[in-house]
Amino acid sequence: MSAKRNVKGFLLDITGVLYNSRMGTDGVAIPRSAEAVQMLYDNSKVKFLSNSKGYSNANVAKRLQRLGINVREEDVITPAPIVAEYCRRNNLNPHLFIRNDVAHYFAGLEETETPNCVVMGEVEDGFSFDRINKAFRVLLNMEKPFLITMGNGKYFQRIDGPCIDIGAFAAALKFATNCEVMNIGKPSKFYFQEGIRALGLDPSEIAMIGDDIASDIGGAQDCGMIGIQVRTGKWRPEFENHPVKPDLIVDCLYDAVKQILENNHTL
Amino acid sequence: MSAKRNVKGFLLDITGVLYNSRMGTDGVAIPRSAEAVQMLYDNSKVKFLSNSKGYSNANVAKRLQRLGINVREEDVITPAPIVAEYCRRNNLNPHLFIRNDVAHYFAGLEETETPNCVVMGEVEDGFSFDRINKAFRVLLNMEKPFLITMGNGKYFQRIDGPCIDIGAFAAALKFATNCEVMNIGKPSKFYFQEGIRALGLDPSEIAMIGDDIASDIGGAQDCGMIGIQVRTGKWRPEFENHPVKPDLIVDCLYDAVKQILENNHTL
Repeated sequence: MSAKRNVKGFLLDITGVLYNSRMGTDGVAIPRSAEAVQMLYDNSKVKFLSNSKGYSNANVAKRLQRLGINVREEDVITPAPIVAEYCRRNNLNPHLFIRNDVAHYFAGLEETETPNCVVMGEVEDGFSFDRINKAFRVLLNMEKPFLITMGNGKYFQRIDGPCIDIGAFAAALKFATNCEVMNIGKPSKFYFQEGIRALGLDPSEIAMIGDDIASDIGGAQDCGMIGIQVRTGKWRPEFENHPVKPDLIVDCLYDAVKQILENNHTL
Repeated sequence: MSAKRNVKGFLLDITGVLYNSRMGTDGVAIPRSAEAVQMLYDNSKVKFLSNSKGYSNANVAKRLQRLGINVREEDVITPAPIVAEYCRRNNLNPHLFIRNDVAHYFAGLEETETPNCVVMGEVEDGFSFDRINKAFRVLLNMEKPFLITMGNGKYFQRIDGPCIDIGAFAAALKFATNCEVMNIGKPSKFYFQEGIRALGLDPSEIAMIGDDIASDIGGAQDCGMIGIQVRTGKWRPEFENHPVKPDLIVDCLYDAVKQILENNHTL
C-alpha cells in the first residue's frame, strides 16, 4: 500500500460536481453535494475552481445558493476576472467575445481600433456565426494573432446531454488564423495556480475533485495535487481506461469528502 | 525558360474568380469574367469546380447567369451531389448538417436512428450553436466517429470581408470528438478527380484557376495540373511569399484566359 497523503484543503469543480446545468434554469443539485460543501466549510479549507465563463462569481454563488448549496462568492474562482487582470497587467487591448454577465470585469478594457488579442468565453445562446466570424477577422488582422480562451474543454455536460465546448472553437480559430492560444482555465497551470494560491497550501496537500478526467484530474495531478474523479456530470464509463489515473474514483462528491474526513483528512 | 505546356482545358473556381459573394444578394461579377467564360466555351473546354456548399448546381448556374456570366448547369461541380453519391456507394447513413438548397441530393439518405457519419456543409446564416452541437453529439455517440466535410477551407471571401469557413468547424469537431475527417472539396484529390474526369483530359493538360493559393493552386499542382492564381477574391499580397508557387499569377481571370488563348493554348 502506498503512503497516505494528508489533505489539508479542497478545490472543487462546480458544474457536474455540485450541480448539473440546464439551459435557462438554475439546473439541478447533485444529491448530497450541499451537505458535502458544508462539511468542508466546517472541517477543512475549500475553494471552487470552475471554468464557468457565462456568469460572474456573484451569480455563480447565488445560483448555487438557490439550489441549497451554500457556496460563498469570495470562494468562487472563474476565468473572467483573472483574464481581465491578465490583460491589464500585460497592456492588452482585447476584442471581447464574452457573455454580458462577465463584461463588468473588463471595465476600462473597452475595445480600441487596434485590438491586440481576442478574449473568448462564449458558447451556447450568445454564440453565433457572426460573433465567431468577428473574432476571426480581428485575429486575421493582427500581426501576431493572440487568443485568450476561458477554458479549453472539449465538451461540457448539460442536463439534455453533452455540449461542444470552447476548446473546440479555439481550435477552429487556430485552424483559420494560426493564432497563439493561451488558456486561462483548467487545465492550465497558470489557472490552477490561482486556486492553490487562494487556499494558501502546498499543492501536495490539496485534493482537486472534478468530473473531467483530462482537465480536472490530469491538470491537478500535473500541478502536484491529488486528483479525485466523480462519477457525476460528464463522467463516462470509458474514463476507467483513460491514460489519466485518478488517485480516487467515487460515485459523487459527498462520498469523496466523507471518506477523506472520516480517514482523519488523509487519502 | 522552361518548356511551354499545352492547355487543353480549364477548371475554374467560382467564388472570387467569377464573382464576389454578398450575403442575401447575388453578389457582384468580377470585371470581364463573363467575357473570359465565353471565350473558354468558344475556344476550349471548361468546367467549374467550386467548394460552394450552399446552393444546388442549378442555382449556382442561375445566379451566375443573372450576373451575366453564361455558365451551364451541367458544367458546374459542387461537393453536395458528390458527397451524396459517396454515401450511397458506401452504405453510409448520414446525419445532415447542410443547407436546404442541397438537401434534395440526399433524397433516400434521410437520417436513421443510428447515423454512421456526419455530413457538414453549413456556415453563415444556418449555422448555430445548436446545429454544430447536434453534429457533435451524433459524432460522440459513434464507435468510429466519421465526418465528411464539403471543403476544408480556412476562410472564404464575402464582399464585407473574409469569413471563417467550414474547415475551421471541422477542426472544432475533430478537437471535440477525435473524429476521422474526409474532405470532399478542394484541395482533396478525390474531389479534383471529379473535375479531371468531367473534362476528360490528362491532368497535365488542365489549368486550374483560383483565388485560394493553398486549396486551388496547391491542390491542383499536387494533382499534376497547372495552377493559376488570380489577384481577385481572397487574394492577399502575402500570397506572393507563400510556399505554394503558382505557375502564373494574374490580375483576374480574363487576363489568364486571354494570355493562354493568344499564346496558342500554351503557358
